[in-house]
Amino acid sequence: MDGRDFLEIGRQILASQPFSVWLDAELIGFGEGHAELSVPITDRLKQQNGFVHGGVISYAADNALTFAGGSVLGTSVLTLEFKINYLRPAVGEKLIARAKAVYAGRSQATCRCDVFVSDGGEEKLVAIAQGTIMKVN
Amino acid sequence: MDGRDFLEIGRQILASQPFSVWLDAELIGFGEGHAELSVPITDRLKQQNGFVHGGVISYAADNALTFAGGSVLGTSVLTLEFKINYLRPAVGEKLIARAKAVYAGRSQATCRCDVFVSDGGEEKLVAIAQGTIMKVN
Amino acid sequence: MDGRDFLEIGRQILASQPFSVWLDAELIGFGEGHAELSVPITDRLKQQNGFVHGGVISYAADNALTFAGGSVLGTSVLTLEFKINYLRPAVGEKLIARAKAVYAGRSQATCRCDVFVSDGGEEKLVAIAQGTIMKVN
Amino acid sequence: MDGRDFLEIGRQILASQPFSVWLDAELIGFGEGHAELSVPITDRLKQQNGFVHGGVISYAADNALTFAGGSVLGTSVLTLEFKINYLRPAVGEKLIARAKAVYAGRSQATCRCDVFVSDGGEEKLVAIAQGTIMKVN
Repeated sequence: MDGRDFLEIGRQILASQPFSVWLDAELIGFGEGHAELSVPITDRLKQQNGFVHGGVISYAADNALTFAGGSVLGTSVLTLEFKINYLRPAVGEKLIARAKAVYAGRSQATCRCDVFVSDGGEEKLVAIAQGTIMKVN
Repeated sequence: MDGRDFLEIGRQILASQPFSVWLDAELIGFGEGHAELSVPITDRLKQQNGFVHGGVISYAADNALTFAGGSVLGTSVLTLEFKINYLRPAVGEKLIARAKAVYAGRSQATCRCDVFVSDGGEEKLVAIAQGTIMKVN
Repeated sequence: MDGRDFLEIGRQILASQPFSVWLDAELIGFGEGHAELSVPITDRLKQQNGFVHGGVISYAADNALTFAGGSVLGTSVLTLEFKINYLRPAVGEKLIARAKAVYAGRSQATCRCDVFVSDGGEEKLVAIAQGTIMKVN
Repeated sequence: MDGRDFLEIGRQILASQPFSVWLDAELIGFGEGHAELSVPITDRLKQQNGFVHGGVISYAADNALTFAGGSVLGTSVLTLEFKINYLRPAVGEKLIARAKAVYAGRSQATCRCDVFVSDGGEEKLVAIAQGTIMKVN
């Protein structure tokens, strides 16, 4: 499978997730061992202080981790668990979650993710995550 | 503050979170050291297999943890970090996230959360979470 | 297998772990879905402030989680991952880690653990943990 | 403080931790935002299959995370929480835990750690961790 095929298949999977479609999430990078997901920041994604709600950031991390794990395990996978640390309030135009598989076994992959906010052409790291993706038999 | 006041204040905070309003989340229980949040399951919250998207479950856990921590620390708090383990596919009518503060220090609280799916009057545990809530000065 | 057999088998496994023997760890409870491990607190287990070193607490949590998971999955298991929150400095006579399996699937179990310090007959919660135990084929 | 001072102060702190001394742990690198800790692998550190016990790996990760966080926050710090994923059985001559501070706020730092096993001059990644270090007032 070449890079273009990866991205096309990944985008089809994302398009089949109603929640991702509802959030206008976009897969902007996808290859063996890595995935990059973006979510445009609109008012409806915010919490009471005008920052992006943690739940949106954890969605982005979770989904990017799953794609990264799926890229090395095969398409039928699920997220077993993950952990996220929020670093800064997320303010800007879009969230970008970049995940990579650090380790891939036969049935599970361990992945890390950095979530950035893009604001006026500049990126800031707003959260980091780590989790386990598992093959579904 | 009695129980009724707690719930009223909690609901005002939830109502000021556009993302929670957008998800139709409801605070169904809130008191010193605990919080209970429900999210009605609709098609738009699903992933490609018809289950509730992990991102929705992590939103519910994150927000319930924050409310539980906030109930012992004061209203101005944020989630520093959390970890979630997904146990079963979530299928049903609504998600219910129940969190409690296990420990409260001066500036941070450590909380646990159980996320259930309610389906035909029965509840099933679909995820468990654990995290740190921090006072914002 | 009755309760007595469980505990005997568990103790044999613990006795075959040189690191646990070195720490004088003892399995004081073991049954289907739960495990209880104690470690006597001696000076060599401390950090620079006279508290039990976090690494000893994480050892106890990790091992109790693994036993609890193993009790529902079978004896050949390993810890895939875990997370721990430290709550209070650990000062006292012994650490007691109590773990239970919250969920058991075919190949993995999700467990929680509470770590206490026993001091003068009183117990204080010093850490909480959550993790995934996996069957080894 | 220059690099040499950092390492000297770090080694004094490590030498004041009886548990680290007992494990023969050594601080082999320490500077602003990073720390490198090694533990020689001896039989007493093993579990029942001859691999390094997970508790030793979590000790190394925890301590390296704390040193990395302390390097940006000041010397009086503690580990609030961390999460670890075990990737491979650890077999070799020594464990090496390399941690770095990904983010440093006023009162807490978020750090990541990679734990390697060194075997015959070759290194293998055996675990990854992520956690929060907090300033003690």
